[in-house]
Amino acid sequence: MLVARRERKIEWGDCDPAKIVYNPRFFDWFDNCTGGLLEAAGFHKRWLFENLDFAGIPLVESRAKFMKPARFGDVVTIETQAVDIRRSSFDIRHQLFNEGELAIEAFETRVWTSRHPDDPNKMKSAPIPDDIVRALKGEAKPA
Amino acid sequence: MLVARRERKIEWGDCDPAKIVYNPRFFDWFDNCTGGLLEAAGFHKRWLFENLDFAGIPLVESRAKFMKPARFGDVVTIETQAVDIRRSSFDIRHQLFNEGELAIEAFETRVWTSRHPDDPNKMKSAPIPDDIVRALKGEAKPA
Amino acid sequence: MLVARRERKIEWGDCDPAKIVYNPRFFDWFDNCTGGLLEAAGFHKRWLFENLDFAGIPLVESRAKFMKPARFGDVVTIETQAVDIRRSSFDIRHQLFNEGELAIEAFETRVWTSRHPDDPNKMKSAPIPDDIVRALKGEAKPA
Amino acid sequence: MLVARRERKIEWGDCDPAKIVYNPRFFDWFDNCTGGLLEAAGFHKRWLFENLDFAGIPLVESRAKFMKPARFGDVVTIETQAVDIRRSSFDIRHQLFNEGELAIEAFETRVWTSRHPDDPNKMKSAPIPDDIVRALKGEAKPA
Repeated sequence: MLVARRERKIEWGDCDPAKIVYNPRFFDWFDNCTGGLLEAAGFHKRWLFENLDFAGIPLVESRAKFMKPARFGDVVTIETQAVDIRRSSFDIRHQLFNEGELAIEAFETRVWTSRHPDDPNKMKSAPIPDDIVRALKGEAKPA
Repeated sequence: MLVARRERKIEWGDCDPAKIVYNPRFFDWFDNCTGGLLEAAGFHKRWLFENLDFAGIPLVESRAKFMKPARFGDVVTIETQAVDIRRSSFDIRHQLFNEGELAIEAFETRVWTSRHPDDPNKMKSAPIPDDIVRALKGEAKPA
Repeated sequence: MLVARRERKIEWGDCDPAKIVYNPRFFDWFDNCTGGLLEAAGFHKRWLFENLDFAGIPLVESRAKFMKPARFGDVVTIETQAVDIRRSSFDIRHQLFNEGELAIEAFETRVWTSRHPDDPNKMKSAPIPDDIVRALKGEAKPA
Repeated sequence: MLVARRERKIEWGDCDPAKIVYNPRFFDWFDNCTGGLLEAAGFHKRWLFENLDFAGIPLVESRAKFMKPARFGDVVTIETQAVDIRRSSFDIRHQLFNEGELAIEAFETRVWTSRHPDDPNKMKSAPIPDDIVRALKGEAKPA
């Protein structure tokens, strides 16, 4: 599977009064990293919106283990990859490393959607395009 | 078990370009609601910090199912309660209802901590005080 | 002028390691309060998007004085009103009170926009509808 | 004056339903950039907290002009520098460029603080240390 990597320095404003990262920040970064995985696969979400009948990849399930806190000034690395790809949904894994140690492991289930034919404001699940599946699997080189 | 309820109107800035709530916002609200549960139990976290050897209740595990999106202008209700209380950790459940329907169900495992004796900047797990356990169970009236 | 009021309890996750509200949170609340002012005027932004050729009220200028910090557990009140309304832009003032004392005073200049005729993804400034001007001035009762 | 530069790709979750960056996000990044300026000067805030009688640099005043929106997928650059340094307060300017064009210009006034002698939970203004003033002025090389 294709792996996307991001590095992030923990900022002052990421942290709560206990001086550790406020947990919703991680979910913000993981969402960014899921977008980054698509981008690494050669399919930036902006491109998908502009060029395909694409309505987003809403999160339908998530779970995470927080094993080690991250503190102001720490530099963390997040590695993101698909771990299972089905017809119209897929599972993503994020591993956040802090100084080399696995600090958080999170899983997301996302649904591929296109615009609802009856209401452009709504979305419906749709098959993940083959070339995107191949790129997420690392079988195709991003352009 | 004691149940804490909060109502929230979905704001413009809670939503992403798909016009649904950006998922990390839910984790922010759930964290608020966990604090609100302690407050409903009669033990506001600020009081705990000022009066006990308390260093916070870091999240060690979370999982959530997102069944129905929430849109700008929707009014949602979150019901929060402990579902399992152990010696120094406990499980919280958040149920977010949108127009009466269960839209998200989320679970958190939190650890009760006190300041580390060797380093005041660090935390270590500690037994949950009995009166707080009783209050979370709904066995004691909040003051 | 019509005044909209909101109360907010400062949450754990609103605060940074200095144990005071992390300043961007205030701008999030002020944005919510500007939406709340339109809602108090009888014109919720969701209604505007669904019923008018409306593309939002982007912020073009802001300034704020932070006179007193807000801490975890404090209850603050924000009073929001238009202070100047021009043809297609208007100024909003937010006053945040903490325990009765003025803690922050902020001003925003917002532009009323409709969808660009040549590109639905872009916005252009547009005259503020008369009934909305009257409602913001407090000259008309919200429905 | 020393100039610190940061580049940032606009993420999906940074944007609101109008598909432009939700304005409080900019204040989050500007706060990060102010920290980044101290870091570029050789004085990371974490080091300041651990090694000096330092209690933070609370924001006391801000103003910003938003000239051009930033959209999902845009890459922006923020240039940050002190523009005036007084005994115990200083002014910071952030210029955000989007595709080479100045899109936002923001100013902050910050106060240098140390812990209050009577209450370690409070802060009081304090003179900015000379070596930090010199580094912000670009007169000293960061280590």
